[in-house]
Amino acid sequence: MRVSSILSMKGSTVATTAPNAPVTEALNELRLRGVGALVVSTDGRHIEGIVTEREIVHRLAERGEAFIHEPVESVMITEVVTCQPDDDLQHLAQRMTDTRCRHLPVVVDGELVGIVSIGDVVKARLTQLEEESRQLQEYISTGR
Amino acid sequence: MRVSSILSMKGSTVATTAPNAPVTEALNELRLRGVGALVVSTDGRHIEGIVTEREIVHRLAERGEAFIHEPVESVMITEVVTCQPDDDLQHLAQRMTDTRCRHLPVVVDGELVGIVSIGDVVKARLTQLEEESRQLQEYISTGR
Repeated sequence: MRVSSILSMKGSTVATTAPNAPVTEALNELRLRGVGALVVSTDGRHIEGIVTEREIVHRLAERGEAFIHEPVESVMITEVVTCQPDDDLQHLAQRMTDTRCRHLPVVVDGELVGIVSIGDVVKARLTQLEEESRQLQEYISTGR
Repeated sequence: MRVSSILSMKGSTVATTAPNAPVTEALNELRLRGVGALVVSTDGRHIEGIVTEREIVHRLAERGEAFIHEPVESVMITEVVTCQPDDDLQHLAQRMTDTRCRHLPVVVDGELVGIVSIGDVVKARLTQLEEESRQLQEYISTGR
């Protein structure tokens, strides 16, 4: 299975926030959308950074509460690990394990076309297993 | 692969916090240990709750910064999804997908013996794939 198949299941919508939006706004977006990361982008197409639940918690631990009134760009990660629609599930899982990044924006020609989380990777693997099991059952019951 | 095999790779250490510890202390623990969740337990053996990065971010969005001076028990989740050493990888992945819980404490006879994260599940699957690939290479090269 490839990243493109995951996107065809979950859609290409990406939760984004602007770099100059206050962190409080990003917090609300994370909560309302029930996601663990927002891509930071002014135009919704080019990636300027990513803001994650983890980064917010670490910042809260380091700096205390005042940072939530600062703009998103003060807490975002700018070295964003991305993936491509052609990447396969194993490659994606390996990249998430190596980098410890749990949300990889999907990029084509420098433009954002989706996002894949570690939850999506696990769900896709379960879908694969169900399909294999279904095919095996069919093979057993029909003999072909 | 079973939960017990994952624990034999990563160890049985579980990051815990006391229910009456202030949230600020839990924030520091999350950051210093680089984990996404702490099991809340007074004696380190019986589970009273779990506090996750997600819960902290949602609470920060809902209530503002004041909650970080409250005790951990005011933000912890008390309905904790757990697993057992005998559970297999697929079962674990399915439970994480169904419940959207990314950290499952491992329990034997009501006592905490480890914790498995979604990152551990993905890493274990990669280890499985490497082993399958190694066995296949060996089969091809030796013909047995």
